[in-house]
Amino acid sequence: MWPEKLHRAIRHSVFAGGKRLRPILCLAAGETAGAPPGRLLAPACALEMIHTYSLIHDDLPALDNDDLRRGVPTCHVQFGEATAILAGDALLTHGLGTLARFPEGGEFAAAKIRVLETVVEAIGTRGMIGGQAADLGAEDEHDPSEALVLSIHENKTGRLIRASLAVGAILSGAPRDVLRSLETYGRAVGLAFQIKDDLLDVEADAATLGKSAGKDAAAGKATFPAVWGVERSRAMLSEQIEQAIESARGLPARGGRLPELARYVEERNK
Amino acid sequence: MWPEKLHRAIRHSVFAGGKRLRPILCLAAGETAGAPPGRLLAPACALEMIHTYSLIHDDLPALDNDDLRRGVPTCHVQFGEATAILAGDALLTHGLGTLARFPEGGEFAAAKIRVLETVVEAIGTRGMIGGQAADLGAEDEHDPSEALVLSIHENKTGRLIRASLAVGAILSGAPRDVLRSLETYGRAVGLAFQIKDDLLDVEADAATLGKSAGKDAAAGKATFPAVWGVERSRAMLSEQIEQAIESARGLPARGGRLPELARYVEERNK
Repeated sequence: MWPEKLHRAIRHSVFAGGKRLRPILCLAAGETAGAPPGRLLAPACALEMIHTYSLIHDDLPALDNDDLRRGVPTCHVQFGEATAILAGDALLTHGLGTLARFPEGGEFAAAKIRVLETVVEAIGTRGMIGGQAADLGAEDEHDPSEALVLSIHENKTGRLIRASLAVGAILSGAPRDVLRSLETYGRAVGLAFQIKDDLLDVEADAATLGKSAGKDAAAGKATFPAVWGVERSRAMLSEQIEQAIESARGLPARGGRLPELARYVEERNK
Repeated sequence: MWPEKLHRAIRHSVFAGGKRLRPILCLAAGETAGAPPGRLLAPACALEMIHTYSLIHDDLPALDNDDLRRGVPTCHVQFGEATAILAGDALLTHGLGTLARFPEGGEFAAAKIRVLETVVEAIGTRGMIGGQAADLGAEDEHDPSEALVLSIHENKTGRLIRASLAVGAILSGAPRDVLRSLETYGRAVGLAFQIKDDLLDVEADAATLGKSAGKDAAAGKATFPAVWGVERSRAMLSEQIEQAIESARGLPARGGRLPELARYVEERNK
């Protein structure tokens, strides 16, 4: 499969495991909104491709310089920096391309355009990439403000999580009020996810996490425990999860799997 | 404009000049195919954003390691590697996002989906990114074959040039035979463009080129002069240009500006 090494590098990172949270949220949103099974499978995979691109590029030596991810060596450690940069580029390209292609059929063209606009907005310079840029800048801040920490996480992690739910809803033809409840759910789950990530970086070890632990503090990162302390961060995590579950319960089918997914985000240990 | 440094880096590379060949070809194809003026302006800009992303990432130390581009320091020299990687990511993201958004209006949804599929195919792992990966691999080949050189250039440069013409044609609602002639034209112009690029690398100086000269030979790159020699490469260039002009003349309005654009590709000195 030409170009062979590049495709191996892509597969290395995509199939290293991972929680698949974004595709699962997309599928769960579609289930709640009543989409036929199967319609969302390719778009859900596209979201994981886009997430994996962001991990590969974030792990590069010039950015977070991480050696371990999902329990295996990071892409650049295994395949070299040049190939890792191209592998990330390829996953972004084909992730967005997959959102353009699937579901197939002219009747989905308008919904797919809306999906692409939503995802690009979420991962662009005012979203995920902007959050990553701000995160790099924040390493120089000796005393990051609460607002800065919230805004970095909202953009770096929260936006793609919310977009994943929106993709499921848009492609299911969900009405506006369902989209709004999913937005509230996604905002709370996204924030909870990042608080938990920061707590795990403090409390867990690399073997469990599958990635380096304790790196945030070492790098002077603007994290929740660094700004609010561990206890307050734990309380914030619980608040967000309860809020997410409440929003989900108001959805059709009482939110389907969305409440238990919120609980998983709270209780996960990696 | 948050994130400020990132947006400055993007503007640095996008507004450093450049020949704007891809957007011009897109607009010229639309003109020939009878699109109303204005419809193609945003998609044409999107193609330049995507091209600029590929330059920023290609110039990175881990890839071609170039210091000079379009007569100014490359993005990573000016803003650091981390920001350059994110600037490239952003231009790819917003380039594809711009193709999803413009032209606005539900009546263009199906055409925009076709545009996105065409462009993603052209710049993905079986297109531009694959060509870049093969180019990196070819530096280890002591005696690159003619077929390898052709295939690297076809993918690395030719595919996006052809796609630029296709975008103009698709958004103009051009019939199949116009698309086919533009495809023939684009194939010849794309190949000619790369032969000329390789010849300029041998014959011109950095001050004129606005980028480093003589780097291909130093890096052992698989180029046209390296494989066919300078004289034969010049003859191949002329053949491709004549073929491009012939295809263009068969188009509506005798190809509009496409024949003179082919001539420009042959005669440009940077």
